[in-house]
Amino acid sequence: MSKIKVVTIGRRFCTGGSDIGKMVAQRLGVKCYDRELVEKAAELVGVPMSEIVKNEESMMNWLKTPISLFGQSELTLAEKIFAAEAEIILDICSRESCVIVGRCADYVLKNRVKTLSVFITASLEKRMQTAETRHGIEDHIEERLKKYDQKRSRFYTANTNKEWGSIDSYDMCLDSGKLGYAMCADIIAKTVEMSE
Amino acid sequence: MSKIKVVTIGRRFCTGGSDIGKMVAQRLGVKCYDRELVEKAAELVGVPMSEIVKNEESMMNWLKTPISLFGQSELTLAEKIFAAEAEIILDICSRESCVIVGRCADYVLKNRVKTLSVFITASLEKRMQTAETRHGIEDHIEERLKKYDQKRSRFYTANTNKEWGSIDSYDMCLDSGKLGYAMCADIIAKTVEMSE
Repeated sequence: MSKIKVVTIGRRFCTGGSDIGKMVAQRLGVKCYDRELVEKAAELVGVPMSEIVKNEESMMNWLKTPISLFGQSELTLAEKIFAAEAEIILDICSRESCVIVGRCADYVLKNRVKTLSVFITASLEKRMQTAETRHGIEDHIEERLKKYDQKRSRFYTANTNKEWGSIDSYDMCLDSGKLGYAMCADIIAKTVEMSE
Repeated sequence: MSKIKVVTIGRRFCTGGSDIGKMVAQRLGVKCYDRELVEKAAELVGVPMSEIVKNEESMMNWLKTPISLFGQSELTLAEKIFAAEAEIILDICSRESCVIVGRCADYVLKNRVKTLSVFITASLEKRMQTAETRHGIEDHIEERLKKYDQKRSRFYTANTNKEWGSIDSYDMCLDSGKLGYAMCADIIAKTVEMSE
């Protein structure tokens, strides 16, 4: 396979996907883009972050029909935000190697840049522990995790027409609960290094 | 994570799982057990291979209720074969590091030996190409692939109570169609080498 330029990381909530993304970027000496992408999109669309966060994972599928980002006033805010995020991702990846967490980046970059698309999972038990110890979530943990997963799943499927969290949607899936965050980052970084 | 002793490889039909298993074993300097396990089981149970092949992937779940392999005459042949395969796997893995392809080895070895459980997938398109060029299958290719998958899925689910081919059932899932066989083998071997 040719040299991998960008690593995209999809993840279930509380599986350490963001941490692993940062660790991979550190090992490879590149930047990791996570929430920064949403901030940049907010700036581009010209709306406050609070509004973006509320709308960013709504259902839509703007990629099905090519659109011009600012040319069509009938676009919903959610569509504008996703379009802005996609434009930012494409712009960044045309200039540099990097790691991108979330944002359906695997789909946005498909057939454009050589990517390694990774999905991070972990058992519900492990994720509940992480939710409590790491994020301080105290009540309705299982319910919250499932709700958040559903939100991400809807967002991914609506934008990509692929199944979120299915082995058929990614190049590599890793269980961070069993392998550990550092090992996941090592595996991903080694894979990039071994590609040429 | 502690040092990985055994790599287990589950796989969809025509994804190169057996080839990748052999390559991993070669890189690690250990043996790869695949069909040999069935032959050993045939010998242990004392029936011809033709009979074994016919029965080996029937539905059963002997692991749910502990049984003594030869003490219960009411066991079906399929149950005896799976029990024999499991005994052989446990015996081999108590003595040596190795790679095991198929046979629900991930489940048989659970909590007994430190394993890296891998599942190999590939797109239906890639698998159809492999079926034709590698295995000389000429007609009803898609139908045959799906039927074989169903057989493996039933066998795995019946014996393990886990979902075959789901990211939640394995430590690592790789797409051999996108990554290539050699890269999959490199990733798996590196992961074992990096564990300690």
